[in-house]
Amino acid sequence: MLKVFGAIVSGNCYKVKVLLHLLGLEHQWQEVDLVNGGARTEEFLIMNPNGKTPTLQIDENTFLAESNAILYYLAQNTQYFPQDTIEQAQVMQWMFFEQYSHEPYIATSRFIHMFLELTPERLADLESKKVLGEKALFVMEKQLEDHAFIAGNSFTIADISLYAYTHVAEDGGFDLSSYPNVLKWIKRVELVENFKPMKGFL
Amino acid sequence: MLKVFGAIVSGNCYKVKVLLHLLGLEHQWQEVDLVNGGARTEEFLIMNPNGKTPTLQIDENTFLAESNAILYYLAQNTQYFPQDTIEQAQVMQWMFFEQYSHEPYIATSRFIHMFLELTPERLADLESKKVLGEKALFVMEKQLEDHAFIAGNSFTIADISLYAYTHVAEDGGFDLSSYPNVLKWIKRVELVENFKPMKGFL
Repeated sequence: MLKVFGAIVSGNCYKVKVLLHLLGLEHQWQEVDLVNGGARTEEFLIMNPNGKTPTLQIDENTFLAESNAILYYLAQNTQYFPQDTIEQAQVMQWMFFEQYSHEPYIATSRFIHMFLELTPERLADLESKKVLGEKALFVMEKQLEDHAFIAGNSFTIADISLYAYTHVAEDGGFDLSSYPNVLKWIKRVELVENFKPMKGFL
Repeated sequence: MLKVFGAIVSGNCYKVKVLLHLLGLEHQWQEVDLVNGGARTEEFLIMNPNGKTPTLQIDENTFLAESNAILYYLAQNTQYFPQDTIEQAQVMQWMFFEQYSHEPYIATSRFIHMFLELTPERLADLESKKVLGEKALFVMEKQLEDHAFIAGNSFTIADISLYAYTHVAEDGGFDLSSYPNVLKWIKRVELVENFKPMKGFL
């Protein structure tokens, strides 16, 4: 059976949880205590030398890391990944955008707000993350002006990937009210059959 | 004809150039002046609202951004992307690792060294990037202990992706001599038929 090592309060881990739920795939979920180094233990590093969750165990010796690579694996030959090669590459484009231009600012701001003490250095760090996080939201806002979903006109794993930290962006100090297309898209994603936001799993 | 908007001195753009070369694909290359805002002009933002190179033009109105999504697109049904689903996902895993855990430290340190003035703030920034860049190199070193190539036993786009900034990591102040498996892998990549390092295109 598939086994996920993850922390459900992490958007990266939630992505995997919600896709497994949409696909109705039975799995074990092993909760990892991220704040106390649960992803840095010797046992964990054997599965994923990069020491990060989520990590998916596929069989005894096969592990897969990186949330978006796990989404890619699970979504093959399902309605959540397109058939057309260009559309597939556009899904990948938005998932790489998520990891490079969105998550490092929006997710990490949330982590700092939720788990760390707000020292003056961290406050300065939050300010610079804010600028780049707003830029990522602006890029999404622009794309969603004329697309119902982030990579085109159907719901894909790129939406799952970007929804994960966008729908809880307020936890990191982002105000989504300046992004009306993003807000409409969040509602559209939440209307996908069987979809659940993060709080549905907490 | 495929057209690439990129700057060959950027590892992200070089990735696309070397794959096009390996595949023998005819293409136009439009050099973009990154340091002087060439990727932030109004015309550029129409192609890629995130304002980044490389951007691939596939046809009049179809553009693809994000270096690793472009590699993914170009490598479909070629020897540089595996057939097996788990192996495909492992290639994706290492490309997401590259964008999240490697490029932000190793590539950006190189950019700072090559193009920016070394103010005290930038020197402090370089120090924190150094720690995380070394961590990424250590994760690669570990993986290459028992794999000939980064995602397994054959050369794939994951190798192109990680080779791009690793083989010029010294430009950013990284010393690869502590990573013997990484150095052997760099040589192995350079022996791939028709492969060229970045300086082969400069």
